Amino acid sequence: MSRTKIIDALKSAPGERITVKGWVRAFRSNRFIALNDGSCLNNLQVVVDFENFDEKILKDVTVGAAISVEGNLVESQGKGQAVEVIADTIEILGTANPDEVSKTILQPKRHSLELLREQAHLRFRTQTFSAVFRIRHAMAFAIHKYFNDNGFFYLHSPIITGSDAEGAGEMFRVTNFDLDNIPRTEEGHIDVKEDFFGKETNLTVSGQLEAELGATALGQVYTFGPTFRAENSNTSRHLAEFWMIEPEIAFADLDDDMDLGEDFLKYVIRYALENCMEDLQFLHDREVKLDSQKPQAERNELPLIDRMKFVLENDFERITYTRAIEILRNSKPYKKNKFKFPVEWGVDLASEHERFLVEKHFKKPVILYNYPADIKAFYMRNNEPDEEGRKTVAAMDVLFPGIGEIIGGSQREERFDVLKQKCADFNIPEDHVWWYLDTRRFGTVPHAGFGLGFERLIMFVTGMTNIRDVIPFPRTPKNAEF
Amino acid sequence: MSRTKIIDALKSAPGERITVKGWVRAFRSNRFIALNDGSCLNNLQVVVDFENFDEKILKDVTVGAAISVEGNLVESQGKGQAVEVIADTIEILGTANPDEVSKTILQPKRHSLELLREQAHLRFRTQTFSAVFRIRHAMAFAIHKYFNDNGFFYLHSPIITGSDAEGAGEMFRVTNFDLDNIPRTEEGHIDVKEDFFGKETNLTVSGQLEAELGATALGQVYTFGPTFRAENSNTSRHLAEFWMIEPEIAFADLDDDMDLGEDFLKYVIRYALENCMEDLQFLHDREVKLDSQKPQAERNELPLIDRMKFVLENDFERITYTRAIEILRNSKPYKKNKFKFPVEWGVDLASEHERFLVEKHFKKPVILYNYPADIKAFYMRNNEPDEEGRKTVAAMDVLFPGIGEIIGGSQREERFDVLKQKCADFNIPEDHVWWYLDTRRFGTVPHAGFGLGFERLIMFVTGMTNIRDVIPFPRTPKNAEF
Repeated sequence: MSRTKIIDALKSAPGERITVKGWVRAFRSNRFIALNDGSCLNNLQVVVDFENFDEKILKDVTVGAAISVEGNLVESQGKGQAVEVIADTIEILGTANPDEVSKTILQPKRHSLELLREQAHLRFRTQTFSAVFRIRHAMAFAIHKYFNDNGFFYLHSPIITGSDAEGAGEMFRVTNFDLDNIPRTEEGHIDVKEDFFGKETNLTVSGQLEAELGATALGQVYTFGPTFRAENSNTSRHLAEFWMIEPEIAFADLDDDMDLGEDFLKYVIRYALENCMEDLQFLHDREVKLDSQKPQAERNELPLIDRMKFVLENDFERITYTRAIEILRNSKPYKKNKFKFPVEWGVDLASEHERFLVEKHFKKPVILYNYPADIKAFYMRNNEPDEEGRKTVAAMDVLFPGIGEIIGGSQREERFDVLKQKCADFNIPEDHVWWYLDTRRFGTVPHAGFGLGFERLIMFVTGMTNIRDVIPFPRTPKNAEF
Repeated sequence: MSRTKIIDALKSAPGERITVKGWVRAFRSNRFIALNDGSCLNNLQVVVDFENFDEKILKDVTVGAAISVEGNLVESQGKGQAVEVIADTIEILGTANPDEVSKTILQPKRHSLELLREQAHLRFRTQTFSAVFRIRHAMAFAIHKYFNDNGFFYLHSPIITGSDAEGAGEMFRVTNFDLDNIPRTEEGHIDVKEDFFGKETNLTVSGQLEAELGATALGQVYTFGPTFRAENSNTSRHLAEFWMIEPEIAFADLDDDMDLGEDFLKYVIRYALENCMEDLQFLHDREVKLDSQKPQAERNELPLIDRMKFVLENDFERITYTRAIEILRNSKPYKKNKFKFPVEWGVDLASEHERFLVEKHFKKPVILYNYPADIKAFYMRNNEPDEEGRKTVAAMDVLFPGIGEIIGGSQREERFDVLKQKCADFNIPEDHVWWYLDTRRFGTVPHAGFGLGFERLIMFVTGMTNIRDVIPFPRTPKNAEF
């Protein structure tokens, strides 16, 4: 008899005869098995009349064991579920020794997130992490669906790259050398020509430049792939390996880019609300409970689902960097010397400033744009100097409550001569980016794009506060287990 | 006035006033501009009355230039299109110097695939490659849609890995060391503890083991990410960096795995036929033309679209490896000594054998299963020895016409003791795979999965015969440009 998934069994009408398979979450009073197969958050209750079963079998129905159950689906007598299964036969698929289970996170009690990370291979079996990773799936699908429905083409930008033009931080080296025996040139230098790719290669920090090549031919493309930073940051917001989404659109300016970013974020958040409510409600309740144990100042102003709806219901506030500086300098915390970092035109805003703007001043998502040229990347489009002669670029950041920057984007410098000059100013050798410059020589067009850190988005829609808890197997300094 | 994409303009009713933007593919008789914006294969014809335009503007309407056109959409007088635009205004967005263009693949004539690869940053602008990469997008989306619709969860397996259990070939090393100054232990060994992750790390060759961790908790998962091989193979079928799809299903055996593989392949091929016909027809016609210039023996037996329909219309033939050996040994080419490689029980089949089975004997896709244990990986499930005492594992390969192996999969060894013994037999230290073994200790379940090389699939649905032509920026020995 073919297996029914628990997500389907829970929606089925009483009366059906079914076979379900899954892992035992609990076995109460030698009578009620809570069975979960990962298809959804909720367990199916299996009712056992112990007189009908061999004691030897029931002895193996322990937390963590895998079983197959055949029986009738009936209306549930208990609270908390509409249906339950009256077991006729139980087959043990895989046992789980209770003494061994008690040393793992499978043991049904609260475990620290640290311990759960150490047992990342088992944490998919917990309620919290199964919810997080089902939502992560849904968000990935929503992203592909959004772009597909809107005529974007998915472009796989290269992971191993010989280009280091983006310069977004330290890079990991990729090599085929035997490190005990690296070939040298006659002058004693490392002979990179002898390496696999015939030159120095690294793991990509961004697929943007390649996405521009696609967009200036196919019109609208996006990347969705892993990116890497070899930064020694042991924080709750940094990973050495993370996933990025980078759409790039031709015939577009910064306004179009901001429109895209806002529409895109609202779409995927709405998708979560429409498709993941059971898991969201669980994480929402979890957060509310955790918050209730915290001092007032550390609690979320709004709980998870309300934060998500809040983003949907508000137009994002769009203000220039220059205006943001004015607002900050006129703010109470500035006047009372409460900001730790300086606020003046030309500096990069710190997290405290961004949070003030989003959470206190505007009380909604904010898009800052037209940043000082000196603090932004070479490929961003130069604006006309402002009335005071200050140089800005057509860059934009989308700031979210609790998260800070969730999107960073810009219109790209499409003017060949200006871009050549910017390469020179940023010390980027033209022969490293000849192919990038070429797109400006052959029918260049205004174009723009942005980058979204996928894990930042997942943090926002799950309420998890450590980025290591929203990716299956986090890579961080001194940690590449599993 | 907002831009209309050419794919939409071509479907619009005559009479509308529109603005279109794109790149000039041709400008005939100083009157007809073929304009393309990448949204689809076909160009929009823009009709220019040169008397209405400044000569200076028309001079810049050259192949490769980007322009914006405003005008009325009218019924076309010419053949080959239903509608065309009568241009009122033309704006030059980006010029393209004809002398420079003539040195590139933008020049409208046939270029070798080698030259197109050298200018991979521009080949998206050609008909062939824009078609290939639009189809590549559609196939990626079809894959996500198939799994999402069937209740699988997308799992991002790690790219940087400290595990080398899969052993599927040579791996690239990932390091943060300064290669000129590698830290050493007192004994003079490389001090891997000092490297970024505190141990030796490599680029993944497969996400399967991690997918098993997901499947034995969430039930059904799939990976879709980049994988790497540091093999010095300069062939038309190998890349150093390529994308793999690896579904993994719990509560499943080899039959379920074969069912999934067949259903999945038919779904994505049907998706291409239903969603990409314009691009497919172009590649189909291209192939027919190229084939007509080849000797009979080198031509495809069926042209592209017919090959795809052929896969849909036939049940895949499922035969054991043992039966395949019998068929091969009774075949004409074997008896006439036409096979280059030996055919006897226990050897891996060569491409010539696979092609004989698929293209000559069965004339349809074939699934071979139950392979000799000695030629397969440690994690595959042991079968009972056959009547002659030979050891096989529950592995399966799906073989396609023209492509050979497109899917390789297996039921996994879920029995803890057997798997432990297999680790020992394959010299895999248990402390490298403790987390993998753990899933067999805590409620182990029968499970199975497979791997699909994404580029192999794209070769099949585009008819491209070199794998470097179906990935945007191929990575191969001595080549990591762009």
